[in-house]
Amino acid sequence: MSTVERIVIVGGVAAGPKTAARARRRSPNADITIIERGRRISYAGCGMPFYLSGQVRDFDHLFATSYGVLRNEEFFRREKGIKVLTGTEAVVINREKKEVTVEELDTGRRYAIPYDKLVLATGSDPLVPPIEGLDLKGVHRLNHPDDALAIKELLETGEIGEAVVIGAGLIGLESLDALLEKRVFTAVVEFKDQVLPGILDRDMAAVVAARLEEQGAEFCLGEKVLRLEGNGSGKVTKVVTDKRELTTDLVVVAVGVRPNAALAREAGLEIGATGAIAINEYCQTNDPDIYALGDCVENLHLVTGRKVYVPLASTANRQGRVVGDNVTGLKTKFRGILGTAVLHVKGINIARTGLGEQAARDLGYEVITSVNATHDMTHYHPGSKKVILKLVADSATMRVLGAQGIGPGDVAKRVDVLATAITYGATADQIHDLDLGYAPPFSTPIDAAAHAANIIRNKQEGLAVGISPAELQARLNTGDDFVLLDVRTPQQFQFRHIEDPRVMLVTLGDIRERIEEIPRDKEIITVCVFGVRSYEALRILKGAGFKDVKFLEGGLEFWPYEIE
Amino acid sequence: MSTVERIVIVGGVAAGPKTAARARRRSPNADITIIERGRRISYAGCGMPFYLSGQVRDFDHLFATSYGVLRNEEFFRREKGIKVLTGTEAVVINREKKEVTVEELDTGRRYAIPYDKLVLATGSDPLVPPIEGLDLKGVHRLNHPDDALAIKELLETGEIGEAVVIGAGLIGLESLDALLEKRVFTAVVEFKDQVLPGILDRDMAAVVAARLEEQGAEFCLGEKVLRLEGNGSGKVTKVVTDKRELTTDLVVVAVGVRPNAALAREAGLEIGATGAIAINEYCQTNDPDIYALGDCVENLHLVTGRKVYVPLASTANRQGRVVGDNVTGLKTKFRGILGTAVLHVKGINIARTGLGEQAARDLGYEVITSVNATHDMTHYHPGSKKVILKLVADSATMRVLGAQGIGPGDVAKRVDVLATAITYGATADQIHDLDLGYAPPFSTPIDAAAHAANIIRNKQEGLAVGISPAELQARLNTGDDFVLLDVRTPQQFQFRHIEDPRVMLVTLGDIRERIEEIPRDKEIITVCVFGVRSYEALRILKGAGFKDVKFLEGGLEFWPYEIE
Repeated sequence: MSTVERIVIVGGVAAGPKTAARARRRSPNADITIIERGRRISYAGCGMPFYLSGQVRDFDHLFATSYGVLRNEEFFRREKGIKVLTGTEAVVINREKKEVTVEELDTGRRYAIPYDKLVLATGSDPLVPPIEGLDLKGVHRLNHPDDALAIKELLETGEIGEAVVIGAGLIGLESLDALLEKRVFTAVVEFKDQVLPGILDRDMAAVVAARLEEQGAEFCLGEKVLRLEGNGSGKVTKVVTDKRELTTDLVVVAVGVRPNAALAREAGLEIGATGAIAINEYCQTNDPDIYALGDCVENLHLVTGRKVYVPLASTANRQGRVVGDNVTGLKTKFRGILGTAVLHVKGINIARTGLGEQAARDLGYEVITSVNATHDMTHYHPGSKKVILKLVADSATMRVLGAQGIGPGDVAKRVDVLATAITYGATADQIHDLDLGYAPPFSTPIDAAAHAANIIRNKQEGLAVGISPAELQARLNTGDDFVLLDVRTPQQFQFRHIEDPRVMLVTLGDIRERIEEIPRDKEIITVCVFGVRSYEALRILKGAGFKDVKFLEGGLEFWPYEIE
Repeated sequence: MSTVERIVIVGGVAAGPKTAARARRRSPNADITIIERGRRISYAGCGMPFYLSGQVRDFDHLFATSYGVLRNEEFFRREKGIKVLTGTEAVVINREKKEVTVEELDTGRRYAIPYDKLVLATGSDPLVPPIEGLDLKGVHRLNHPDDALAIKELLETGEIGEAVVIGAGLIGLESLDALLEKRVFTAVVEFKDQVLPGILDRDMAAVVAARLEEQGAEFCLGEKVLRLEGNGSGKVTKVVTDKRELTTDLVVVAVGVRPNAALAREAGLEIGATGAIAINEYCQTNDPDIYALGDCVENLHLVTGRKVYVPLASTANRQGRVVGDNVTGLKTKFRGILGTAVLHVKGINIARTGLGEQAARDLGYEVITSVNATHDMTHYHPGSKKVILKLVADSATMRVLGAQGIGPGDVAKRVDVLATAITYGATADQIHDLDLGYAPPFSTPIDAAAHAANIIRNKQEGLAVGISPAELQARLNTGDDFVLLDVRTPQQFQFRHIEDPRVMLVTLGDIRERIEEIPRDKEIITVCVFGVRSYEALRILKGAGFKDVKFLEGGLEFWPYEIE
């Protein structure tokens, strides 16, 4: 071992440079080298959709510091004292000799770089669906800045009127957002039968899809793309699914990524069941001198204690600091993840953390959930916007397992707060205890997150019995006898209500006086805008001795179906 | 005891109605009565500044549900089945007979109302400074909707050109915001030598004051109001302080509130050292059938374990649910508070939670702090705004004790997250571990809160040695020999820099090449915009063997003094 510690990092996008920068600040004399097979380094991959949409005007902004300096090889050399080898691929790790063989992609020249500590930040590769036509002109991914440049160039020709996005995950919906911003008619084809599978529960996803359809997006859910077809000049013109044919000028393929673990696998490093590199709590592989982080590793899920593959830039960056510490002698732990994710699509914010409802059930939890539709700040403040929050809890322990938020309002704040609480194993009653900041431009006196937790408590206590939109819709489609008691004002009812002979309008304030009109022998399902008045009505009816009363959770705000 | 539980609640503003509503939902048959001495009930007191500013256009909106129904006596009777007696004052509690004597203020009629459970939600009264002239026309408080109506009426005469706000606390600054919105030239006189005493630390407060002065506010800090003077027709014309005379057309007195605990005191209930009603974790007074909550009680501080008086609407509302449970037989705890508060003044968001730096020192903690100036979302996103976060931690345990945030960006989210973490006793390294949501329109890959915690860790490890703006300013005012090394770009330097012969410009990227120009024998203080590049520069210099290097924490963004 040389007297100067040699730190070699494979991967120059996010995790690698972050590791290098932290290591340099801790260790001024270490010899730090980043190996990157591409030409571009340290770029803001998450910013690409915003470059497409035009919100980020200049491509270089994705590579620049906040003070306008480009993060290129020169920047890393001058500001950080870090050597960056671009266009250079790490091809073999020789663990015994502790060296990495690299190849200069331009020249084919191979040589070995010795290391004391090796860091694998090899990232992920886009999944390629097994369909014909992916090589047609106008078919792109959105995983690398070069993809963004190519799509942007196409958009600027002015010849793109229609687009198809394959995949309704994070990148798929961010691509949709950008294309709609550019006034391109866009359809999204998704193999699963909901948008954002694995991110949102079906009920939340249904509302997101309904709201995006109102804004011009088209979804083909539960559809499989069979092939892409082109014209004589090799340009894509059609997406053929198992249900239809979509004409198009542009296809964005965003069906997910897989860990790029080949280098690690070939070196005999342990690969987890997820297919990603296995690491311990120090981000260390089974070779103590080799660390791995970012999109190429699997991580511990803090709720389940299981290993999961959830590649996110936030995790990559947080791990960068941890690995930067560990390769320079400070033992720092990376404790795990909750899969917290957030995105914005056409005025709708979407956030999630922890376990979804189905995931929790699949893991054997006895699940209790709540949906709270409300305002993100006092309703009389002009900045107030709507939010829908869903909580998933374990009814045995009342521990909160996960949270999801959607809506034009600030769901990201609530989900960050809930992610923090979940990290500490908070129960639903503890969410109400949190001393969160209140003033009219920021929140409601009892924050939306606390309201959602209170609904779970009310359900657990038996005060509230909810029915989901899907259950109610199924009931409406049968000849079941029940009363759908709409408790809104007559004006509200007039503008929009569920059209069904079982619907009865009794405004909340009239219920006590008109209670004899409501049939006692029937099941009553109360409905309002948010689920607040319908819950209040339920309590009045239960108090008056009605036996079977439920309220529509989340109200009409959470109703994803057609309505008169 | 009657077969129907009688719940009597004294106070009809926020805590009382919230208690009543929860009690009703839990107990359909309880006999629930609210006694309120005023004519108005269940109003959004926190919304009054927004009514003044015109953001809330209609006075009634402060009294209406989100579905447009006024929350008056009729509303409580019809929707909630709750009896409200307005214009009725509770004058004596007879604990042995379990009844409250009330007086109808119009008629003078007195009668007794029996209770099984009594709830005191008597609120607070505005403090009245011991000065002459408070009875002049144009002198108002902002504690009651009638105050808001009166001030609004004055503003609408078009004759209010100048105003003086006495007190730079929450209500004082919200009043300032509203008056500036109405284009009224406004000065704020504060007895303490900073804005928001008890809310913000001096360093944070200094930046807030500087930014508000840029927007036209004037502050007279550390000044005592001696008297108000009026003209012949009894209208206020002048505020005389110990340092100056201010002409004015309007005075808003906002020097704080004190708990309205007289009724409880006279009934022999325990009053805490703060002067507010003492309660246990069930919001119960020392009489087990009498509960108290809201602005009239003291609360347990979750960091210190001490009792404090921090009257806030959020606490009142959270306690309302707890008391509603407890008076109907469900034992629910109220665990305590962190004093989390948030406000908006002229484009600047301000949030705080837990202990301030001085408060922590006064309590004997060995305090370590950090200041992080940064963007609230990725700097390349067009919605990105600046934030400054300050963390206060205990250096012995690294536990986070408090947090403060200021700036045009989203500080409320970060402070809510930190409040949640502090509730669970989080240490600084655990803040970095939090899996918070990241996407360009929402945050940075490592959130501002995590950055602030990382700075604390860097200081604790000895990687970073900070100097505060106040310390640097003091050093600049002496003849001390040191180098103030500005590491920004030449363009940035040209527009704005500290003017002093000790200033030397060496752009960060040039430091490694020009290191021989920087004197090794002198103390070096590095400076940049946010404190990021200056820290990087510090690490380079320390790595090169420089002995005494500090960085200006928070950078010029946190510099509250005049600058060229």
